[in-house]
Amino acid sequence: MKIICAKSELSKGLQIVSKAIPSKTTMSILEYILIDATGSAIRLIGNDMELGIETTIQGEIADKGFVALNARIFLDMVRKLPETDVEIVLGENYKVTITAGKAKFNIIGRAGEEFNYLPTIEKIDGIEISQYALKSVINQTIFAIASGNETNRMMSGELLEIKEDSLKVVGLDGHRISIRKIALAGSYAPKKVVIPGKTLSELSKILSDSTENKAEIYFTDKHVMFAFDDTLVVSRLIEGDYFNIDQMLSSDYETKMTISRKDLLESIDRATLLVKEGDKKPVILDIGDDVMELKINSTIGSLNESIEISKQGKNLMIGFNPKFLIDALRAIEDESVDIYFVNPKAPCFIRNKEESYTYLILPINFTTVD
Amino acid sequence: MKIICAKSELSKGLQIVSKAIPSKTTMSILEYILIDATGSAIRLIGNDMELGIETTIQGEIADKGFVALNARIFLDMVRKLPETDVEIVLGENYKVTITAGKAKFNIIGRAGEEFNYLPTIEKIDGIEISQYALKSVINQTIFAIASGNETNRMMSGELLEIKEDSLKVVGLDGHRISIRKIALAGSYAPKKVVIPGKTLSELSKILSDSTENKAEIYFTDKHVMFAFDDTLVVSRLIEGDYFNIDQMLSSDYETKMTISRKDLLESIDRATLLVKEGDKKPVILDIGDDVMELKINSTIGSLNESIEISKQGKNLMIGFNPKFLIDALRAIEDESVDIYFVNPKAPCFIRNKEESYTYLILPINFTTVD
Repeated sequence: MKIICAKSELSKGLQIVSKAIPSKTTMSILEYILIDATGSAIRLIGNDMELGIETTIQGEIADKGFVALNARIFLDMVRKLPETDVEIVLGENYKVTITAGKAKFNIIGRAGEEFNYLPTIEKIDGIEISQYALKSVINQTIFAIASGNETNRMMSGELLEIKEDSLKVVGLDGHRISIRKIALAGSYAPKKVVIPGKTLSELSKILSDSTENKAEIYFTDKHVMFAFDDTLVVSRLIEGDYFNIDQMLSSDYETKMTISRKDLLESIDRATLLVKEGDKKPVILDIGDDVMELKINSTIGSLNESIEISKQGKNLMIGFNPKFLIDALRAIEDESVDIYFVNPKAPCFIRNKEESYTYLILPINFTTVD
Repeated sequence: MKIICAKSELSKGLQIVSKAIPSKTTMSILEYILIDATGSAIRLIGNDMELGIETTIQGEIADKGFVALNARIFLDMVRKLPETDVEIVLGENYKVTITAGKAKFNIIGRAGEEFNYLPTIEKIDGIEISQYALKSVINQTIFAIASGNETNRMMSGELLEIKEDSLKVVGLDGHRISIRKIALAGSYAPKKVVIPGKTLSELSKILSDSTENKAEIYFTDKHVMFAFDDTLVVSRLIEGDYFNIDQMLSSDYETKMTISRKDLLESIDRATLLVKEGDKKPVILDIGDDVMELKINSTIGSLNESIEISKQGKNLMIGFNPKFLIDALRAIEDESVDIYFVNPKAPCFIRNKEESYTYLILPINFTTVD
């Protein structure tokens, strides 16, 4: 194998496929990236068996062939090469020579045959969405999942539900639920899958910020594939039925508060200073007629602040994990938000009229307040 | 006590004095910053008993008094306050109320009497230097000290030697020596002190980058004081005689190589990729007539690169710890550097004609090279 490509191309491609390289694994081949120059284009592939990424880079194939290289070392080397053309040659015994300008690295690769290619997924019945929209709905919901939850795998993933021209994305961890809905340009057959959180968070890092660039999504019984630019991201699905969230959502309320998102966010952010790691101190919202008092009281000190609000319904005093409020408020772009409450033991809902976003957060009991 | 000052002033002052707060200590009062509003100006003080920093901030003293506040909490709180005036009031039982706009924090402080003030040092017989020059000579030498060396405290400090109109700064760790000389604007009595590396590295962070702003340096038998802007930095000295470095310096050489600093630096930087943490692999310089070959060979792979040089004297093959070469080369601004060698077992010297910088580096034995 002998290939020549610009350093920038190689570097960009490696950045993308390295997102599928696990940080720890007992199967060492999973730490490798495959350079596949057996066909008409140079393909790079990373695959941890749950998530696989393949991308095509511009360059010349002088001699066909393929070889796997340790991802971390390969990436570090390429990063430090001069900005010029890079030549990669496979020699005997999997000795790979990487040359750029006067720099010349030798490393030992592994046989391409050892590497696991991505499962083949046909591009039929796909849905189309802008990369920016897909990236946004992921980032606006994924914080609410329980990513390390091995006993309840369903909580470590996100629901993607397609119904006609609407895409709904849901994440939850037992204490909160994040829901985002967006409109699609076309109308599609109904589809409901649960995608591992890891897949979505890595995917969101390589999607572009452009609304012009499209991504296509394809489904099989066990896999989902995202196709965009020169890249394919293939992931296993989490099998089983997702939680029935509809029964947890309610539009009844006793108190509705409208408040500046920025003021509330900054105030809760200050309150978190008084909460030590692992401490379960709630931040207390004391909702009055035109003013909400925000209070927290810990071993470090106390804080109280007043924020102007407009309110409908009853006065209410309720406590929350400040992090959950912050996560939800940061995921919203509106200048002011509506928050709906029932009583101090029932969840609050932060949602807009169109219900393009709904954030449900369970309250925390509190005993004494200053 | 009641003071009012702009958040930006308070924040700037706290950033400065927090440099004297130890990250770990068994004496909890050392983790506190004193607000001293007993005189005509608001002073902030941090003091870990080896290094003490005091700075004056603009503001109004409505009620005189003083109190100590936990540095980390105080700093975090102030950072999150809105950009407005901040009022700090000391109440009963050391309850301190910090108010800015609608934000209101309460924390418990400690009696100002518990706090250790800086030792008093008279401003006589000081030397004057631009803050930029002082910051530069520190940063260009301090990497060579053995900062954690408890058995040989002298190696954890830097020598400052004043002779007439010249300031020399020296750092060493037993494998290398860094020396910088700069000219002072005045002529001074001879002075030779060893200052803890911690003091100098914290000092360099708060010195400005301006050549216009001056710093003054004052000495006593046990202390040094740096006075600049509204700030005093006072430090204990390391007592005892510094190493006799003159006997280690020699101007004899068998090989002199002139090389592009950038090319050499980038090449060694690439070579370090092949060196695992803790591994003692040397980078080999194989110096020929017009070309130096740089080689490294490890379990990860190998690298060889050729760099054009101009050479006087003998050919030479010699090995170095790549980190030591990188540190020295990064501290130099010249486009090309002269490196002097005697033999593969003697130190090399990177120095310029004026000897405003000298970097001595001991070589490493190497056995086999490709």
